[in-house]
Amino acid sequence: MDPLVIVSNRGPASAKVTPSGDVILSRGGGGLVSALSPLAQDGAIKWCFPISSQAELDAQSHGLFGRFMQGLEPIEVAPDVYDAAYNDISNKVLWYLTHGMFQTSRNPSFDSVFYLSWKKYLEYSSEIAKSVAEIAPKGARIILQDYHMFMVAHFLAPLRPDSSLAMFLHTPFSSPSELDVLPNEIAKQILESLSNLDHLGFHAAKWQQNYLDCVSSFGANRAKHSWVNPLGTDAIDIVNLGNTPQVEEAADKLGALANGRRIIARIDRMEPSKNILRGIDSIVEMYKFYPYLLATTVHFANCYPSREAIPDYGEYAREVHEKVESANKYLRELARPLKIELESDPIVLFSEDNFALSLAILRSYDVLLVNPIRDGLNLVASEGTILNEHDGVLVLSKNAGVAEIVSEIIPLVNPFDIKETALAISQSLALNKEQRKSHNSHLKTRFLEFNPQLWLSNQINWFNAP
Amino acid sequence: MDPLVIVSNRGPASAKVTPSGDVILSRGGGGLVSALSPLAQDGAIKWCFPISSQAELDAQSHGLFGRFMQGLEPIEVAPDVYDAAYNDISNKVLWYLTHGMFQTSRNPSFDSVFYLSWKKYLEYSSEIAKSVAEIAPKGARIILQDYHMFMVAHFLAPLRPDSSLAMFLHTPFSSPSELDVLPNEIAKQILESLSNLDHLGFHAAKWQQNYLDCVSSFGANRAKHSWVNPLGTDAIDIVNLGNTPQVEEAADKLGALANGRRIIARIDRMEPSKNILRGIDSIVEMYKFYPYLLATTVHFANCYPSREAIPDYGEYAREVHEKVESANKYLRELARPLKIELESDPIVLFSEDNFALSLAILRSYDVLLVNPIRDGLNLVASEGTILNEHDGVLVLSKNAGVAEIVSEIIPLVNPFDIKETALAISQSLALNKEQRKSHNSHLKTRFLEFNPQLWLSNQINWFNAP
Repeated sequence: MDPLVIVSNRGPASAKVTPSGDVILSRGGGGLVSALSPLAQDGAIKWCFPISSQAELDAQSHGLFGRFMQGLEPIEVAPDVYDAAYNDISNKVLWYLTHGMFQTSRNPSFDSVFYLSWKKYLEYSSEIAKSVAEIAPKGARIILQDYHMFMVAHFLAPLRPDSSLAMFLHTPFSSPSELDVLPNEIAKQILESLSNLDHLGFHAAKWQQNYLDCVSSFGANRAKHSWVNPLGTDAIDIVNLGNTPQVEEAADKLGALANGRRIIARIDRMEPSKNILRGIDSIVEMYKFYPYLLATTVHFANCYPSREAIPDYGEYAREVHEKVESANKYLRELARPLKIELESDPIVLFSEDNFALSLAILRSYDVLLVNPIRDGLNLVASEGTILNEHDGVLVLSKNAGVAEIVSEIIPLVNPFDIKETALAISQSLALNKEQRKSHNSHLKTRFLEFNPQLWLSNQINWFNAP
Repeated sequence: MDPLVIVSNRGPASAKVTPSGDVILSRGGGGLVSALSPLAQDGAIKWCFPISSQAELDAQSHGLFGRFMQGLEPIEVAPDVYDAAYNDISNKVLWYLTHGMFQTSRNPSFDSVFYLSWKKYLEYSSEIAKSVAEIAPKGARIILQDYHMFMVAHFLAPLRPDSSLAMFLHTPFSSPSELDVLPNEIAKQILESLSNLDHLGFHAAKWQQNYLDCVSSFGANRAKHSWVNPLGTDAIDIVNLGNTPQVEEAADKLGALANGRRIIARIDRMEPSKNILRGIDSIVEMYKFYPYLLATTVHFANCYPSREAIPDYGEYAREVHEKVESANKYLRELARPLKIELESDPIVLFSEDNFALSLAILRSYDVLLVNPIRDGLNLVASEGTILNEHDGVLVLSKNAGVAEIVSEIIPLVNPFDIKETALAISQSLALNKEQRKSHNSHLKTRFLEFNPQLWLSNQINWFNAP
């Protein structure tokens, strides 16, 4: 079989410097790592990724990557080029584009600074393509991962006509009217680059359809094949991770805080696409209509830090903190005349990076709110369902990619619709034990049909397509 | 011929109270008034519109409307119903929807307050439909005007099966992914209401296509016929308006302020869809690359007040003022080391409601910047071209409806692209006299092919379609 090459913006290990000055590597999260690790142990893959920090550069010079996993191929890219490609283009433009989050009256603005960054994104893409072209064995099957790699195919395809080229996109894809916001030349460059692919994969049919609509609307060529292939949760992995002493300890603390109240939970990066503000509004809306629920329920919102270098993210985090504060104030005033004794603030916001706490919350929720405005897939929905020990109910946005695979099992909500979301949460709380059990078990069965190994082997099988 | 009935949110005359306490009517602007006035004098039409203020109610009770124009039919609607339908639904939701301006990470939010407003919008629509059903003669041809009337067809069609029902939409129409933000039930209600129309008209093929895409994407029924029928400027009217002593006086003042420098101008409501912020950025970007233009050019931005009750508009106006201030500061710093003497601030922002000034600017510009992020049509582009006395050059957004009718004559700009817009302005300034003359005359010829009378007679002719 032809050798397999993976190309992603982040490798499976992230480097950091210890207080004593040593550089160490630790395993990153995500389905790709869990799917690829067994293959890597067999020496069957090469995994290429750009070096993104001084710590990684140090790790590389000490040969740490090689010892961490077989087949790792870190690629050196000039720091300013990496920074512009990652922060200015990938995070600030392409992320907002694919998630439909431009505030068109103010952002984006394509000024000469943007064009300079775009030039560096092209340079980044070209550097990666050149390195991959050297690294990939003859006849390799190359799989690019995610929107950071949009332009790599443009440079790589002519260098390696002997290879087969695939890409998997973990984000949504924009609609034609959204893509039309980009400078026309750049929108066309992206579609043209993708047309070099033999195979292009998406988590959901909706994103595949958006891609095909863009191709047709811009009169562009399209990738030879496109596929829908949702990633799944590694059940064994997540259950093991959820059973450590740290998680037990966090679960005990949570239990004490909840003190018998039922838990409405969310776990998300602190990120505008996750729709945390409207989540809080929905909780408040629910209590407004059913104030007595204040005595028997509590909302745990676990929103851990993300991309704090982006000003909009900082602003969003500030708005979330403010909203939680004013919501709690409002809910206390709502409770007082009704003589409802509050155990704690009705809305508890955790905003630290605490993986054990996240897992503890997933184990113990009664309702899990997953209401992104748009999300490539969303693994929290399946991780939560698999880990949960209370026959917890999932309230899911219709705009998460994962919604497609469970749309016949559970009702979905419009993430912009506060009233509908509030109603869905209160209806979930009103289900009886049997209904909850049935909801949870159908959902779990469905989610267990997917896993990272299946997801990767599907991608590998693409190459057999005629 | 069957009688003609026009239904719009605003009538042809607006009422105000004079300092001495009298109520007077004055003629409103817009192509509809200029197109309909001759017909009204023949008594050939009825023009229905809701009463929107106490002053209008007073004018109605004094019989002023009847004396102002034959056939006017003011409809009384409860003030809270009008307010919710006009401000909360039409201005805050439908305007943002059709112009693609939702900031999805924060707005809109469909909470119970919104649902209450939507109920009132339906009530407003039903009240108007009932009154029109009583007013319209047997066999009437009824033409609804604009998005305020989205839901009127739903109530009117069953009441008057003898009538023919048309609608003209002055805004853009949203793409399917934009419409999908609305509560599903409400998106479907709007499309279902429009499917009652025999004829639905748009300023541009792009908006018609968006409508058809929405219909197909939502699996809805569609209006029997749809049409593209761009409104034109009434050349005689605008030239007359541009030749009053007030305009001459304003032109003299402007001339003194420009003092021989060439004028880059914009005339817009102070409104997020008009893209004023990126307009200023584009001017700054141009001077950054061609600083010596600071000595020979000046930017007059005339942005008059609009919908000041909407918080986002107030915030936008504040941002525009701040941006102009910081831009002028930056440009002065840019000029200093180059020893460029500045006559005045390089960017002059007028923010009062001064019609004479607007006309004076249109008469005297060298370059007119019309860069909306999206605009149903945009009449300033044609008004300016017709009025201008300097063979002025138009720099036009590809997303203005009017772009479609001149796309083969002038280059268009992406309104999000600061660099492209800056380049288009500087290239316009670089045209020689002959090139400007040719640009202006081709453009003027094209714009003169359209006018309000033609636009209205096209709508009337729709009713002859099989």
